[in-house]
Amino acid sequence: MQMRVFGIDCGTEITGYGVVESCDTGRQPRLLCNSLGAIRLAKSKPLPERLAQVFHELIAAIDLWQPEVVAIEEVFYSVNPKSALKLGQVRGVALLAAATKGLPVAEYAPLTIKSSVVGYGLAKKEQVQFMVARLLDLAELPEPPDAADALAVAICHIHTAQTLAAQGAPR
Amino acid sequence: MQMRVFGIDCGTEITGYGVVESCDTGRQPRLLCNSLGAIRLAKSKPLPERLAQVFHELIAAIDLWQPEVVAIEEVFYSVNPKSALKLGQVRGVALLAAATKGLPVAEYAPLTIKSSVVGYGLAKKEQVQFMVARLLDLAELPEPPDAADALAVAICHIHTAQTLAAQGAPR
Repeated sequence: MQMRVFGIDCGTEITGYGVVESCDTGRQPRLLCNSLGAIRLAKSKPLPERLAQVFHELIAAIDLWQPEVVAIEEVFYSVNPKSALKLGQVRGVALLAAATKGLPVAEYAPLTIKSSVVGYGLAKKEQVQFMVARLLDLAELPEPPDAADALAVAICHIHTAQTLAAQGAPR
Repeated sequence: MQMRVFGIDCGTEITGYGVVESCDTGRQPRLLCNSLGAIRLAKSKPLPERLAQVFHELIAAIDLWQPEVVAIEEVFYSVNPKSALKLGQVRGVALLAAATKGLPVAEYAPLTIKSSVVGYGLAKKEQVQFMVARLLDLAELPEPPDAADALAVAICHIHTAQTLAAQGAPR
């Protein structure tokens, strides 16, 4: 199953993204990291400008890599309302970037992402980074962790699609 | 002081907007309502599409009315994290619309808006609607209340600018 997924990990200071491709060239489906990056927001900038930066950098990366789908973390509700609002503002803009490019969006719970990548839903950030590097055959740990998390949600989407395909279910 | 303000009242189901202009034609500065409207989101649509609808309708209204500034309510933090996240997503997109059109954004706390429009910070929605209608010389109450709230934040911005101008302070 050939597919290219654009993973996004939203954050109020750093929003990570990563592009993962699955290739059917060998016996085993292979995962490739096409790109990874982090959008760092200057606290000194007014909020609307920061949101515009996230939007334009995501649009530029999507235009460059032409993925078929966007994968994003479902939000973890136990944060406080103030943080949830701030995160929501960035997330809204990220979802708008996907909609603007006409891409479907798949959402995964943090537990599902960690289970899919590490095999353990309560895995720590470092374990996710390590397993992402291993699954994508990277020479180094993906940095910053936000980019690793974006790659993780992209991998989770590919694993889910592969499982559904193996079960003969429609994706 | 001549100015045209685009007020936005973000909501997860309805986002109101309203355009208020202040004119210096008479002895007393006069306020005019150029437009008001409400963007209603279908719950059946996927979230990214709903956010795209908010974005495009706001951009279209801004393009039509060519305001100089956007006024928006500061967020009220005592909602729960789940609602805060949902509201944040819409708010992020509204702020992005302002940034996309190169407009400055002024934020006002709910208490400030109500004090400015009704003269009482804990005024009810109906009182805000009534006073907005009166200040803008509208024949009917502005509906829905979300549009009235958007007009209220625009009026609050004009009142604030007039007060600052009267005090000789830079706006």
